[in-house]
Amino acid sequence: MDGVKHIIAVASGKGGVGKSTVTVNLALALAAQGYRVGVLDADIYGPSQAQMLGVKEGTRPQAASNDKFLPLQAHGIQAMSMAFMVNTREPMVWRGPMVVGAFQQMLTQTQWDNLDFLLIDMPPGTGDIQLTLAQKVPVAGAVIVTTPQDIALLDARKGIEMFRKVNVPVLGVVENMSLYHCEKCGHEAAIFGTGGGDNIAQEYDTQVLGRLPLTLSIRELTDSGRPSVVSEPDGAVSQTFATIAQKVAEAVSANQGDGPTISFSE
Amino acid sequence: MDGVKHIIAVASGKGGVGKSTVTVNLALALAAQGYRVGVLDADIYGPSQAQMLGVKEGTRPQAASNDKFLPLQAHGIQAMSMAFMVNTREPMVWRGPMVVGAFQQMLTQTQWDNLDFLLIDMPPGTGDIQLTLAQKVPVAGAVIVTTPQDIALLDARKGIEMFRKVNVPVLGVVENMSLYHCEKCGHEAAIFGTGGGDNIAQEYDTQVLGRLPLTLSIRELTDSGRPSVVSEPDGAVSQTFATIAQKVAEAVSANQGDGPTISFSE
Repeated sequence: MDGVKHIIAVASGKGGVGKSTVTVNLALALAAQGYRVGVLDADIYGPSQAQMLGVKEGTRPQAASNDKFLPLQAHGIQAMSMAFMVNTREPMVWRGPMVVGAFQQMLTQTQWDNLDFLLIDMPPGTGDIQLTLAQKVPVAGAVIVTTPQDIALLDARKGIEMFRKVNVPVLGVVENMSLYHCEKCGHEAAIFGTGGGDNIAQEYDTQVLGRLPLTLSIRELTDSGRPSVVSEPDGAVSQTFATIAQKVAEAVSANQGDGPTISFSE
Repeated sequence: MDGVKHIIAVASGKGGVGKSTVTVNLALALAAQGYRVGVLDADIYGPSQAQMLGVKEGTRPQAASNDKFLPLQAHGIQAMSMAFMVNTREPMVWRGPMVVGAFQQMLTQTQWDNLDFLLIDMPPGTGDIQLTLAQKVPVAGAVIVTTPQDIALLDARKGIEMFRKVNVPVLGVVENMSLYHCEKCGHEAAIFGTGGGDNIAQEYDTQVLGRLPLTLSIRELTDSGRPSVVSEPDGAVSQTFATIAQKVAEAVSANQGDGPTISFSE
């Protein structure tokens, strides 16, 4: 793809496990390590990246000279999202082919500027967007985000099996919302269970890239458009993301040479 | 629809806010009040209801005499899900029309037995399944599930706007994961924010049907196939669901007469 060295899909199977939060923080962590990074928000029905990157409502991408759009810039990364195109309250009441069309347009008509990594914030499920991505562009690998509990693992497994079917290597698993530490007494509670990340990494012979606690600050900072990695660069959360970023970059370069082949046919 | 008096969609816009958990507990609460209740799991990519209802893996629906399937029975309610048809690990790597086909089949070829309420556990988004439901059957109303934080409200708004577009009345909002009470010191933390349910109910002139706390037990009991309403029928969570059930039943009967019209055309 023009202007992009490596495409990484950030996926989960299930919604609401913090995929968009992980995407934006991982992107910022890679940028902090000197990489040029872009984020493509592939969730057409429920895009989150405009709010998470602090892009002011109503900001629209500018046209480039060649029928393409320039991505928006935020916190030093390049970004494209359906949220930059429409009113945030307006639901996209669209059937599959319309959604695929919008996704393809964002994928092929954004003029990314010399990116090392383009992170794609995938919607939940294993359908149109996932198939289109695997068929249209070479994907260097997938990062699977999951919470530790059984119901989330059910869907994370499906996500991994899908990437295998379409020959996209799984780079590893991020376990999100791992433990909650009470702000007052420090008591640890496994509100969303424990051990799920390890179990699934073992089952599929991949690595746990990192574990993120369930904390108020991650959610608040991301909601406010200044994710942890830029707001608290020396904090524990940023350090975890720095490690995840390193492992992702290493896994991508280890996979090179036998590059991803896109062999899935409908 | 044959064998069904009222169809209620349980929806959220965003995934991971506890929609399936609310669906199953609301179904059980309605059943506890003497109604005959069914659950249709419309999440084709990530069905959760088999596990939540404690249906043993591999249990398959039996054929009825008329080309239809009998729903499975669990905790006194009738249920149909994609999870009853396939291996739980197998991802449905399907484009929109395939998903719509599977949903339509479950919707029209299940032989529901004399239901007062059929609750439909909707997938996230505002796409194929949502459009198909609104176009194929009369929906008595929608229950919107949201967590209190901004990012979830973004998507809940889209869900509500979509139901308005297709003329399905919104019966009210369930705010999930409202406050976490530390098991040890009792400290209350608004991990997923506060006030979101009220804000959105006011904005759209609808009611808050109930607020559910973020607790370990709701998640654990649902994951284990014995949801709170059957496991702890006298507990606070069950009481909240009893109130929600009452309000839902009242809202549906108040809406009758001017019944839902399905006027949306693609």
